[in-house]
Amino acid sequence: MDKNYTIAIDTMGGDNAPLCVIAGLDSIYDYLVENQINLLLFGNADKVAPIIAKYPRLNNISTFIQADDVVQGDDKPSKIIRSGRNTSMWKAIEAVRNKQADAVVSAGNTGCIMGISRLLISMIDGIRRPAITTLLPNAKNSYTTMLDLGANTECDENNIFQFAIMGSLYSKILLGNDRPKVGILNIGSEAGKGFDYLSLAEEKMHSHKDNISFDYFGFVEGDDIFNGKVDVITTDGFSGNVALKTLEGTSKFITNELKTSFKSSLSSLIGYLFMRKSIGAFKSKMDPRKYNGAVFLGLNGIVVKSHGGTDAFGFANAVKYAVRLVVNDFETKVQHEIEKVRE
Amino acid sequence: MDKNYTIAIDTMGGDNAPLCVIAGLDSIYDYLVENQINLLLFGNADKVAPIIAKYPRLNNISTFIQADDVVQGDDKPSKIIRSGRNTSMWKAIEAVRNKQADAVVSAGNTGCIMGISRLLISMIDGIRRPAITTLLPNAKNSYTTMLDLGANTECDENNIFQFAIMGSLYSKILLGNDRPKVGILNIGSEAGKGFDYLSLAEEKMHSHKDNISFDYFGFVEGDDIFNGKVDVITTDGFSGNVALKTLEGTSKFITNELKTSFKSSLSSLIGYLFMRKSIGAFKSKMDPRKYNGAVFLGLNGIVVKSHGGTDAFGFANAVKYAVRLVVNDFETKVQHEIEKVRE
Repeated sequence: MDKNYTIAIDTMGGDNAPLCVIAGLDSIYDYLVENQINLLLFGNADKVAPIIAKYPRLNNISTFIQADDVVQGDDKPSKIIRSGRNTSMWKAIEAVRNKQADAVVSAGNTGCIMGISRLLISMIDGIRRPAITTLLPNAKNSYTTMLDLGANTECDENNIFQFAIMGSLYSKILLGNDRPKVGILNIGSEAGKGFDYLSLAEEKMHSHKDNISFDYFGFVEGDDIFNGKVDVITTDGFSGNVALKTLEGTSKFITNELKTSFKSSLSSLIGYLFMRKSIGAFKSKMDPRKYNGAVFLGLNGIVVKSHGGTDAFGFANAVKYAVRLVVNDFETKVQHEIEKVRE
Repeated sequence: MDKNYTIAIDTMGGDNAPLCVIAGLDSIYDYLVENQINLLLFGNADKVAPIIAKYPRLNNISTFIQADDVVQGDDKPSKIIRSGRNTSMWKAIEAVRNKQADAVVSAGNTGCIMGISRLLISMIDGIRRPAITTLLPNAKNSYTTMLDLGANTECDENNIFQFAIMGSLYSKILLGNDRPKVGILNIGSEAGKGFDYLSLAEEKMHSHKDNISFDYFGFVEGDDIFNGKVDVITTDGFSGNVALKTLEGTSKFITNELKTSFKSSLSSLIGYLFMRKSIGAFKSKMDPRKYNGAVFLGLNGIVVKSHGGTDAFGFANAVKYAVRLVVNDFETKVQHEIEKVRE
């Protein structure tokens, strides 16, 4: 356990940066030390230094690197790729490319993080496409790993199969699922449903069943994301993104409607007081900060995108994902699994 | 207003058939009479006759037709197409094909309803593909019309454009939206996002803007289904089905988690008593029976699929959709709109 790991942090990304970034890192200081993590903090000293001054122990495990510019929330990836080399995001991602860091975490603009990462960081040997991956809470008091959520509009059977391999390793490392159950997202569970490449991906799962480290479950549908029937759902980036946005919208709609009805009368306000504790438990379970972090898997280096609107608690959780993945050597494991199924 | 309309009813389809079907029809007896609707009731007399006997006034507006067999919930469409000619579902759909009925309503097996309908009923002249359409409640206290929800795995720009035409007429007739706003489901709102055929569909919307009876809004994402930003969302059947199943799953998950936390302590039970009324209002607004009914649009005849698990109230709502669409001459209007954009 003598190995040290380095995580590059874009301190300027996100609505509440750099405060929530620095405060988030400080909140898991002991965890970072235990895991022998060094931090490279990229940002504008004028803004970041006064905040670090409030959390001085972070200096023990971090190096600050000046970056004059900041990627804005509405910057187009094309613009940043042309002229964003002095942004904290670019420099943080570049640190991974230059092997100065094992992972990078940013709460900045998703499109730019993905764009810069794909440009600068090479793919793991044998991986054809990277995938955006996230955890979603499920009815079995655990989380479903889902990928790809939008990195690739169009996919083929090889991509779907490789996403299954990466997603199952992700589930294993982050949730301890020793042999995850993997499903392919489709519009029916019967064989032959949906697009041809989905059936071909299914054939690959079967023909490689002795070489893979997960159990192939079969086709699943959108309503299986939350019931915990499988641990991992593999899909193309278009369908994955539609599903992700739809579930975010549904969840927001239902909670807003519920809030409105809670406030509709005096008796419901009184009721609310009695129920505060159980409503709190519900909120805590559904708290998106707990599973904050979409990870861009398949590159030589872990790229974690924290939600832009998150707070210190949420940002810290995103950093923890990066720590778990680098400490457990996600990349080497992916390479090993891909080697086993090489055709 | 001398015109009479006929609606064919599969009395045997659905978990609670034939009771909820017959009771549902009786509950809207006055509505059916006002709209000059005659019913053709298809089913097994042994089961249906004793129930009709309890609602004798239905005899004034309906004719019973014997069908010996019933499509089961797990029957494969291929099997029914081979040997299902004596089922109540087949005969009811056949009545539309034979111009004995203007519409058909069934709460039976979706795959079989779609399969038989596509086999027996021709498409509206000019329409290339039929689409499954539904209404979803939105934050503007109205409903978003969404199609296709699974009739076509793969679509092209012509299909997406035609779905927009049919969906906007649907929204106009059922919700009174005079000039509906239409969005194309995509994974980002910027031009050029997603698949090429989506950009081509967008071009069609622009080039035909003087010939269409709706306003093209632009690309929308999954979280726009519920916010009421547009009245109609057009998409391919794969993405539409993924979105539909995902929102159903999300909604079920959240309400179950909420129920669990409500029952978690005595104080939350007391709170629940105070909140009963507002929780009731919330439930009523979200009540899926109110927008029960997926309509298979694009055929020469209206095919309505009621949810299999619905009750009399839900089934009656599905029948009302059929009534509104036939009385407002949906097919002729579609033909007219398609004619205006013929290239």
